[in-house]
Amino acid sequence: MTHDLQSLTLALRDFARERHWEPFHSPKNLAAALSVEAAELLEHFQWLTEAQSRELSADKRAEVGTEIADVFLYLLQLADKLGIDLVDAARSKMVLNAKKYPVQV
Amino acid sequence: MTHDLQSLTLALRDFARERHWEPFHSPKNLAAALSVEAAELLEHFQWLTEAQSRELSADKRAEVGTEIADVFLYLLQLADKLGIDLVDAARSKMVLNAKKYPVQV
Amino acid sequence: MTHDLQSLTLALRDFARERHWEPFHSPKNLAAALSVEAAELLEHFQWLTEAQSRELSADKRAEVGTEIADVFLYLLQLADKLGIDLVDAARSKMVLNAKKYPVQV
Amino acid sequence: MTHDLQSLTLALRDFARERHWEPFHSPKNLAAALSVEAAELLEHFQWLTEAQSRELSADKRAEVGTEIADVFLYLLQLADKLGIDLVDAARSKMVLNAKKYPVQV
Repeated sequence: MTHDLQSLTLALRDFARERHWEPFHSPKNLAAALSVEAAELLEHFQWLTEAQSRELSADKRAEVGTEIADVFLYLLQLADKLGIDLVDAARSKMVLNAKKYPVQV
Repeated sequence: MTHDLQSLTLALRDFARERHWEPFHSPKNLAAALSVEAAELLEHFQWLTEAQSRELSADKRAEVGTEIADVFLYLLQLADKLGIDLVDAARSKMVLNAKKYPVQV
Repeated sequence: MTHDLQSLTLALRDFARERHWEPFHSPKNLAAALSVEAAELLEHFQWLTEAQSRELSADKRAEVGTEIADVFLYLLQLADKLGIDLVDAARSKMVLNAKKYPVQV
Repeated sequence: MTHDLQSLTLALRDFARERHWEPFHSPKNLAAALSVEAAELLEHFQWLTEAQSRELSADKRAEVGTEIADVFLYLLQLADKLGIDLVDAARSKMVLNAKKYPVQV
């Protein structure tokens, strides 16, 4: 994994340990929290048209950026708990997707 | 953003363009797809106890890793569409979280 | 469908029409809103143990009841838009489930 | 609650008891399962335009009806576990919503 993601992962470990949150951070609970944050992200878009979602105001974009960060932070923590390298997993999945959805020529 | 995430982002742009998926990839739709993938991830854990979720078999861990990758791939694409740097957004959110949840001393 | 559900459905139609919300209430958007409300419901449970979730305080139970109502109201609206009878659909699905998961004897 | 919903609720209790699923059906787990089913419902709509979502084929409508049923069945079970009357909760929430979103005149 890249240096930036490792550094974020270590910071998240410290953050949880300092607050005694580790007992709450089972993979089951982290997966639920991730799903809840993904829905909070979706909530920003639910009544917008697709066209409007492509033209967010700067304020809205900042709010959405915060929700995206929440999803990412839980994803990093869940991957860390399970010993999964996010970048490796993403690359492997892209290889599978390329086979599943071949380019039409 | 780190080199690895930039490289994944560029690969995802190519992947979508080659398949003519760009018209479908509005931020609204990507946010919905992200939320759906997060739920597929959660599905693996829904009937497990928290203890069981901490002790996944190698097979189950591989399946969960694929779902984690799906969430990550949509997150990268949504962040790209909105011009949001995932790592910067995550760092900023951790600063906010540190203020919101101060360490008890 | 039962009288109570029909009466709720009609009240929801009036509610949306009086507020000029109909253009926003495409099945796609209602499905997103339903998913968001289901996540708000899950949020109440995400850090609880299963045992704690079986022993909610009266206050918490009331909060959870409001989220359950939100899910139900969107479900009724989505079913109405698609001309689906909730009770009939539920009964048909229980028949399928009985075949899929036979009782072990 | 109406006779139909009571009858479904009792059938769901029997269904779970006969399969020895009760230990799995904590409110926490049922809320997760409900959220997962809501996402499966959303999945049918994620790449459709809003206009397309208003014009489902008969086949697609049947598939969506099955997902709607799954959401409803978990909602009934969760409400039952928590002693919440779905119809009463929905009516109370509509009163709150009417105050929160007054009709513009």
